Amino acid sequence: MVATDAEHADLAGLMNAVIEHAVAPMHSLGIRVVELRPGYVLGAAPLTGNANHLGTMYAGTLFGVAEMLGGALVVASFDVERFHPTVKHVEIRFRRPATTDVRAEASLEADTIARLRREADHRGKAEFVLDATITDGDGEVVAGTRATYQIRANRPGDTVAAETLDS
Amino acid sequence: MVATDAEHADLAGLMNAVIEHAVAPMHSLGIRVVELRPGYVLGAAPLTGNANHLGTMYAGTLFGVAEMLGGALVVASFDVERFHPTVKHVEIRFRRPATTDVRAEASLEADTIARLRREADHRGKAEFVLDATITDGDGEVVAGTRATYQIRANRPGDTVAAETLDS
Repeated sequence: MVATDAEHADLAGLMNAVIEHAVAPMHSLGIRVVELRPGYVLGAAPLTGNANHLGTMYAGTLFGVAEMLGGALVVASFDVERFHPTVKHVEIRFRRPATTDVRAEASLEADTIARLRREADHRGKAEFVLDATITDGDGEVVAGTRATYQIRANRPGDTVAAETLDS
Repeated sequence: MVATDAEHADLAGLMNAVIEHAVAPMHSLGIRVVELRPGYVLGAAPLTGNANHLGTMYAGTLFGVAEMLGGALVVASFDVERFHPTVKHVEIRFRRPATTDVRAEASLEADTIARLRREADHRGKAEFVLDATITDGDGEVVAGTRATYQIRANRPGDTVAAETLDS
């Protein structure tokens, strides 16, 4: 699949609309998608509104900006008419305080996506592990996550936003 | 240390004031302390304001209500004039969607607290692992966490709210 830059911009815009309208608390934390295309996602969260009294970013916002990456990658890389993402497990390691806006980045290789598509087609679900890195304004790593997501066949009423589900 | 019920109520109120004034994004998620005493903490988060479009609770709110338990236990169990809590690592496993308000609970045994006090006195820091369980309105487990916190000696300007710090 080859998309134009304009189509990639639309994909990030679509995901931000999903966040705003379907996951209000994530939107209220200022978490947003900056870049999104099949296999790649870049998210961001502002320090403003997320700082504690010491001027460092709230741990829950760092979690949130990384957690949503897996859902965004599913939206960008799979047929959302047929499948939706769920998150099963997240591990986050805090490396240093974040005292600036942050970015979070993750990617899935094309052959991994192809394998997951085949598996989801065949079994109605597929699972993947995603590593993400959260960096501050100087490019220093402030936290890292490893998360497990599941791609699940839609039932009537399901839509594209991530939900948390039992395995 | 034996405190009266009134003093325990004050401890929860103190912690909620810290959340409101020092960790605004956590407060905006509706995360609060319900019960707090040395070695025991119960937190809560409402579904209202935290539901996604499917009516289930946002993963980040489930993370947040569990993550703050370690900081609250440090505030309740250690001398906050001398020490403050930091979070190093959190692992969360989502078991089933939460479709009601949730509660999160954790405890530290008295002998663990005594050991950590000795270690913090001696080394200026001490570390502990805390398991927490998040349950829904029917008492069903919706998620579980295992987190590592550090108790660190205050430097000038440090206060009681949790921060995220490098080891």
